[in-house]
Amino acid sequence: MSHCKPYVIGIDMGGNTTDIGVVDSRGKIHASTSIRTKDYAAEFGDFIDALAKAIRQLLGNIGGPQMIAGIGIGAPNANFYSGNIENAANLPWKGVCPLAEMLYDRLGIPVAVTNDANAAAIGEMTYGSARGMRDFIMITLGTGLGSGIVINGQLVYGHDGFAGELGHVKVRQGDRLCGCGQKGCLEAYCSANGVARTAREWLKTRSDDSSLRNLDPETITSKEVYEAAMNGDAFSKEIFDYTGQLMGEAFAEFVCFSSPEAFILFGGLAQAGDLIINPLRKAMEANLLKTWQGKIKIIPSALKLSEAAILGAAALGWKAQ
Amino acid sequence: MSHCKPYVIGIDMGGNTTDIGVVDSRGKIHASTSIRTKDYAAEFGDFIDALAKAIRQLLGNIGGPQMIAGIGIGAPNANFYSGNIENAANLPWKGVCPLAEMLYDRLGIPVAVTNDANAAAIGEMTYGSARGMRDFIMITLGTGLGSGIVINGQLVYGHDGFAGELGHVKVRQGDRLCGCGQKGCLEAYCSANGVARTAREWLKTRSDDSSLRNLDPETITSKEVYEAAMNGDAFSKEIFDYTGQLMGEAFAEFVCFSSPEAFILFGGLAQAGDLIINPLRKAMEANLLKTWQGKIKIIPSALKLSEAAILGAAALGWKAQ
Repeated sequence: MSHCKPYVIGIDMGGNTTDIGVVDSRGKIHASTSIRTKDYAAEFGDFIDALAKAIRQLLGNIGGPQMIAGIGIGAPNANFYSGNIENAANLPWKGVCPLAEMLYDRLGIPVAVTNDANAAAIGEMTYGSARGMRDFIMITLGTGLGSGIVINGQLVYGHDGFAGELGHVKVRQGDRLCGCGQKGCLEAYCSANGVARTAREWLKTRSDDSSLRNLDPETITSKEVYEAAMNGDAFSKEIFDYTGQLMGEAFAEFVCFSSPEAFILFGGLAQAGDLIINPLRKAMEANLLKTWQGKIKIIPSALKLSEAAILGAAALGWKAQ
Repeated sequence: MSHCKPYVIGIDMGGNTTDIGVVDSRGKIHASTSIRTKDYAAEFGDFIDALAKAIRQLLGNIGGPQMIAGIGIGAPNANFYSGNIENAANLPWKGVCPLAEMLYDRLGIPVAVTNDANAAAIGEMTYGSARGMRDFIMITLGTGLGSGIVINGQLVYGHDGFAGELGHVKVRQGDRLCGCGQKGCLEAYCSANGVARTAREWLKTRSDDSSLRNLDPETITSKEVYEAAMNGDAFSKEIFDYTGQLMGEAFAEFVCFSSPEAFILFGGLAQAGDLIINPLRKAMEANLLKTWQGKIKIIPSALKLSEAAILGAAALGWKAQ
């Protein structure tokens, strides 16, 4: 009878907030709510109890659990194969948290999980810019740089469920320390944090004028660098040039791997638009094999920031069993 | 009735020689022959005529074309989707050569083509070290560096059929000119040619002792560097350390992409064994995220050099239609 169930639940789990939506097969969100992840930092079991309770309340409005085909969850470091969250630096619980199993125990509804960037890729493929594409790479530019890779119409999970860590390929020349313990990782440069770090470094090592010098360098944000660049600050514009160039060089290598039809950019930093996409495209083209020059699309996400993660998780929910 | 056809034909097409084998479903070669590619350099049509003639002669020995389920061909720059060879630097014909279509016209047997590294990956998955693996990366170390990527048990062709050009990702620090026109490509360092180039460069720029100084630097080969290293020449051993290190750094990035169970090394240079695998593994481990440390296998091909390409192409032949 599962074919008759008209809704799935999509859950976007973050370190601060966990958003929950009831979604139909066309990607329309019919009901939504959220809980504060942080309030249950002490015990993962308490978080699951609170999540199950919030879902039961939502279901009361739409006809009960028999209307739900499945639950999909996008969460940092969530593993599609095991259903667990494993060693997530941005969540309060350490070690391995059996997310899918514990939520299924509470609700009796099938649960599928994956990491947040993979969920965004599924959302983009189902409802966004990647509809109809069988080969593309989703890059999420938030605090860090996440990625979801789609090949032959399938999300790439890899041998162990952890594929698609493109934030941790190394930029060609650079030794900035990354949160993962390695040096020179792409996300240490190309992310909201990375842009702020570049600004801080350059403010120290360079002496040219910039409106950024009016700000406290220790608390500077990528949004402030963006605003300065849009107001004509050359120093800030150069930070985006540099960020885009490193990304473009990396993208050219990703093309060697899977020859995608497009890169889809998502997240706060992606909203910098041409400021980052122009230098990115230029550097990518300069580093591509002739076969691919002029052929690889770079397009912004077609989904609203606030909805994409829920929609992606929801699309995964149809496959939960 | 195609299920009843007991054989496929596997063809390994190279710039000098094209090898042809009749193969059964267990990977046994029942008959084989070869033609000299070079003899038909003037006209691609002449080459196809000679190939069709050689195949007809082979088929006479095993019961005729009705015994053949399909023909698989591994060839440089061959595109699985189009069936064409496109701009192959190592073949005598320029531009686009409609290989699959022209051979099908002559013989009436379905033909599938792919590039030589992909054919080797299929061979390894069907008959070699990768049996049972759903996620692995085949690296062929010949004159250049080729790659065949398998994800979810499927070969990765990408949007346009040209995926898997891992020889053209850039090493982290280096600007050696590659045959593709770009600088710093992996295959300019990690290949038979690359090893010889490193030897030539170092003989010029360094002054320490080496038995390689007795050779003409202009014609030095990777085999000579290998032999010197095996005879205890520290300079030559260091060349392999350097080659392995650059490969290991690159492998760590490939793991970020598809999280493979294993890398399988194939080809002449792979036969250097521990001389290259030890520094490679060390550099890969040093650059991996913690999640993957100690978990990614690096294993030599289980197929004979002389048979692997034919077996891989043959395995593709079963899918020709």
